[in-house]
Amino acid sequence: MTSTIDTASTSGPASPSAASAGAAASLDEVIAAARAAFAVSVASSAEQRATWLTAIADALDAARDELVPIADAETHLGPARLNGEVARTTAQLRLFATAIVEGSYLEATVDHPDATTTPPRPDLRRILRPLGPVAVFGASNFPFAFSVAGGDTASALATGCPVIVKGHSAHPRLSLRTAEIVAEALRDAGAPEGLFAHIVGRENGTALVQHPGIRAVGFTGSLHGGRVLFDLASSRPDPIPFYGELSAVNPVLVTPDAAAARADELAAGLAGSFTLGAGQFCTNPGVVFAPVGSGFAERVAAVIDADAAVPMLTDGIAAAWAAGVDELVERDDVRVAGGRVDADAVGTGSAVVLTTTAEAVLADPSSLYAECFGPSTLVVEYESVDQALEAIAAVGGTLTATVHAEPGEDLTAVVAVLSEIAGRVLFGGWPTGVAVSWAQQHGGPWPSSSSIHTSVGVTAMRRFLRPVAYQDAPESALPLELRDANPLGIPRRVDGVLQVG
Amino acid sequence: MTSTIDTASTSGPASPSAASAGAAASLDEVIAAARAAFAVSVASSAEQRATWLTAIADALDAARDELVPIADAETHLGPARLNGEVARTTAQLRLFATAIVEGSYLEATVDHPDATTTPPRPDLRRILRPLGPVAVFGASNFPFAFSVAGGDTASALATGCPVIVKGHSAHPRLSLRTAEIVAEALRDAGAPEGLFAHIVGRENGTALVQHPGIRAVGFTGSLHGGRVLFDLASSRPDPIPFYGELSAVNPVLVTPDAAAARADELAAGLAGSFTLGAGQFCTNPGVVFAPVGSGFAERVAAVIDADAAVPMLTDGIAAAWAAGVDELVERDDVRVAGGRVDADAVGTGSAVVLTTTAEAVLADPSSLYAECFGPSTLVVEYESVDQALEAIAAVGGTLTATVHAEPGEDLTAVVAVLSEIAGRVLFGGWPTGVAVSWAQQHGGPWPSSSSIHTSVGVTAMRRFLRPVAYQDAPESALPLELRDANPLGIPRRVDGVLQVG
Repeated sequence: MTSTIDTASTSGPASPSAASAGAAASLDEVIAAARAAFAVSVASSAEQRATWLTAIADALDAARDELVPIADAETHLGPARLNGEVARTTAQLRLFATAIVEGSYLEATVDHPDATTTPPRPDLRRILRPLGPVAVFGASNFPFAFSVAGGDTASALATGCPVIVKGHSAHPRLSLRTAEIVAEALRDAGAPEGLFAHIVGRENGTALVQHPGIRAVGFTGSLHGGRVLFDLASSRPDPIPFYGELSAVNPVLVTPDAAAARADELAAGLAGSFTLGAGQFCTNPGVVFAPVGSGFAERVAAVIDADAAVPMLTDGIAAAWAAGVDELVERDDVRVAGGRVDADAVGTGSAVVLTTTAEAVLADPSSLYAECFGPSTLVVEYESVDQALEAIAAVGGTLTATVHAEPGEDLTAVVAVLSEIAGRVLFGGWPTGVAVSWAQQHGGPWPSSSSIHTSVGVTAMRRFLRPVAYQDAPESALPLELRDANPLGIPRRVDGVLQVG
Repeated sequence: MTSTIDTASTSGPASPSAASAGAAASLDEVIAAARAAFAVSVASSAEQRATWLTAIADALDAARDELVPIADAETHLGPARLNGEVARTTAQLRLFATAIVEGSYLEATVDHPDATTTPPRPDLRRILRPLGPVAVFGASNFPFAFSVAGGDTASALATGCPVIVKGHSAHPRLSLRTAEIVAEALRDAGAPEGLFAHIVGRENGTALVQHPGIRAVGFTGSLHGGRVLFDLASSRPDPIPFYGELSAVNPVLVTPDAAAARADELAAGLAGSFTLGAGQFCTNPGVVFAPVGSGFAERVAAVIDADAAVPMLTDGIAAAWAAGVDELVERDDVRVAGGRVDADAVGTGSAVVLTTTAEAVLADPSSLYAECFGPSTLVVEYESVDQALEAIAAVGGTLTATVHAEPGEDLTAVVAVLSEIAGRVLFGGWPTGVAVSWAQQHGGPWPSSSSIHTSVGVTAMRRFLRPVAYQDAPESALPLELRDANPLGIPRRVDGVLQVG
C-alpha cells in the first residue's frame, strides 16, 4: 500500500531503515506503483473512494492518543491544539467523502445534438477526470491538517489521484507513523496497492516534482521553497500544475469609527490572533492598519505577554523569524511598540509589536510587507482611510484581508480593495482559523498562492481534475455519470439547464 | 475604447500609422487604460456585459461582407469557410452572453454559520471574480473564431476582464479592422474606455506577457511559440496563468471490424478531414491507426486530389509543413502511400498520405508524432488492437482522439486509453469541427494545452476567474449574487445543497 524511501543525497535506492511501511523502493518504483494504482482508481466509483477516505479518517481518530504526543514532541504546538487538528483533519476527509458521492464536483454536462447551431453540434458530454499521480508537500505548522493526510492528500485521493507525500523534515516521526496508518487503512479498505506512498529527503522531493509520472504538485510552505519547486514544475519538458500556498501578510483595517468605539477590544483580539501557535499561521495578521493617534500599537503592546518565550516549530523557523523582525527593527521608520526582541534566543519566540506609518509603507512596500512567520505584527498608522487603502492595495496578493468597522459604515471602497488582493475577506473577527467547507477559499493572488484554485474546502478537488468530452459516444462507452438516465442521480447540466440530480 | 500600438523593435511609443482606432499609445498606457477599465468592469452586472458581447456580435455580423474579403486575401481560406467562421464567432459571443446571465459560472456558494463543525464555521460565501487585464494571442488559422474577437477574447470579456489582443502577423489588416469594429461596438454599448485594445509587433507581445498589469494570457498557436511565452509567464516575479492551445496529432483508431465493414467510406472521410482548410486545423487527424493488410493508406491515397496545390496561410507555414513531411519521408520506416511531396512549392500544400507501422512508432514516438501542420496524415498499420493502443498511449497529450468501431464492440480498453491522452474522445466522425457549447472541451494533456481548462465552450470562462470568500459580511457589503434573498435568481449551493435559481 505504501512505500517509504529515505535518501538524503540521491534519488536512488532507499535506506531500509525508514521503510517500515513497506519494502524499500526507489522513487521510480514508487511512482510506477502509483501509476498502476491509477489504472484502478481512475475507474473507481465515488462510493468506493468515499470508503477509502472514511477508513483513513476512522484510523486517524483511533490513533489520536498515539499520534498527538509524537506531534507535540516534534512541533511544540501543545496537545489541545493538536487534538483539535486531528479532528479537523478527519472531518476534512469525511467532507470530501460526502462531496464526491454528491457528485456535482464532476461538472457533468450533457449537450444533445443540435443541427441548428454554428457549427452544428454533435452529442457532447463532458466530465472531470483525475489527472494521475500527485506529489504532496506538507507544511511544518499543521502536522496533521496540511501534512501527510491533510487537505492536499484528501482532495487528490477523493478525485481518484494516487498521492505521493514528501514528508516534512520538521516532523519526521509523525509523518512516517501517519503514513503507516493511512497505508494500513487503505489496504484494509481494499484500495489498490500504490495509491498512497510516503517519501523523505530533499533530493527525492526535487526528483518527485520532475518525474514524468507525476501530473500535479500540492505544496504548503515558504515562498522561497515553493518558488524553487514551482520553477521545476514549470520548466519540465511537460510542465505540470504546481499548487503552492506560499506567503501572506493578511492585512487588517481598523476603521476610525471602529478604533473610536472599541480599540481595546480589538487590540486584545489582535494580540490573541497574532500570538496563537507562536504566530506560525499562514493566516497570521501581520500588518494592521489603525488610525494615527488611536494609540493602537500601544494598546496591543499592553495586552501581550512579552515575557513568555514560546518554543517555535524548529530552530530554523525561529531564527528566520528573529532575523525578519531584526530587519524591521533596524529601520528608522519602524518602532518597537512592545515586546521583546531577543537576539540570543534559540528556538523560541516572544510576542513583538512593531509600528510604522502608511507613508513609510507606501515608500517601501516590498520590505515592510515581507512575511515574518512568527509572533509579531506591524501596526501601520494611517492619516485617512484612502491612504490606508492605497497602502493595502500595495500588498498585491494575500490569503486574507480583514476589516473592522462599525455597523452602518459604507464599505464599498474597502471591499473593492480587499477583494482585489485577497482570497478571503473578513468582516470582523481574525483570519487565523480556516473553516473547511464548501464556500471556503484559501488562496489569493501571488505570492499567497500560485494558482486560481483553493487548497482548503471542497473545491480544492478541482486542482486535480481535467475535463474530457465524449462526442457521439454509445451509451455503453460512457461513464455512468453521463448516461441519459443519470443512474447515479448526480447534479448535471443538460442542454444548458442545470438539473439537481 | 481601443488603442493600437505597432512597434517592430521596441515596446516604447507606437507607430501612429497603425493607430487608426485610437491615439497612438505606449504599451504602458494601453495597460493602464485596461486597469482603469477593470475598476469599472469588475463591478459591472452580467446584464451589462451581455449587452457588450451582443453589441460586438451584431457589429461583426453587420460587417461580414467587408471583413470576409479582407480575411480571404490574407488567409486564402475561401469565402464559404470564412463566412461560416464569422457566424461561429458571433454565435460564440452570444452564447457567453447567455451563460453569464444564467449565472452558474460564478459558482456562488453560501455556507451559513455552524458551531458544530471542526473548526467552527463562520458565515462564508464564495464567488468567482475576474482576474484583471488579459493578454490574448490569436491563431493564424482561424482569423475570426480564434483571433481578435474569438473565444479567448469573448470568454475574458464575459467575466469582466479587459482584453489586450496581440494581432497575428498572418492577417494584420483583418485584425486591425476587426479591432476597430469591436472597439466601436463597445463604445456605443457604453463599455468603459480601455476595456479592449489591439497591439501588434512581436516585441510588444513579449512585453505584454511580462507586464505587471497583465493577469493571464490566452494563446492559440505553435508549440514552439507557446512554450516561449509560457516560460515568460511562469518566470515572472509574479507568475501568471498561461492558457496555451499548442499542438496535437489527434490519433484515430480504425478497429479491425470497422476496417472490414467500411474501409472505403472511412478512407473518404479521412481524406475530407485531413485536407480540409489545407489541413491547417489543430484538430487535424494526423495519425490514423488501421489494421495491417487493410490497405487503408492506399484507399486514402486513392481518393485524395494529389494534383491540387492549395494556398496555405503563410509561406512560413507551408515551408514548415513541407519540412516536417520531408523529415518523415526521408525515414526508412515511412513510405509515401500517395500524394505529392513537392520540395519546390512555395506557399502551397498538396495532400500527402504517409504510412508506417506501429512497431516503428513505438520505437521512436517523439519523431513520428511531431505535428505536421498541413494537408498530410500518417497511416500506422497495427498487428493487434493492443499494439495500436500501446502506440496511441505514447501520444501523451492531444486535443482529440477518435475511434471508428462497429456497433456492439467492447470499447472499454479503447476508451480508457483515449480518455487518458485527449480532451475530446470521438466515436465515429472526424475531429475537425469544434462545436461551441456547454459540454465542449478543447484542451488536453501537454503538449496539446498548458492547463486543466478548455479554450472553447462555456467553461472557458473559468480560466479568467478566481474565487473570493466573504466571511461574516454584512448583507450590504456582499455582491448581489451572494445575498440571502438571491435577488438575481442564479443557481447557488447553499449549505452544501445545489439550488437551481
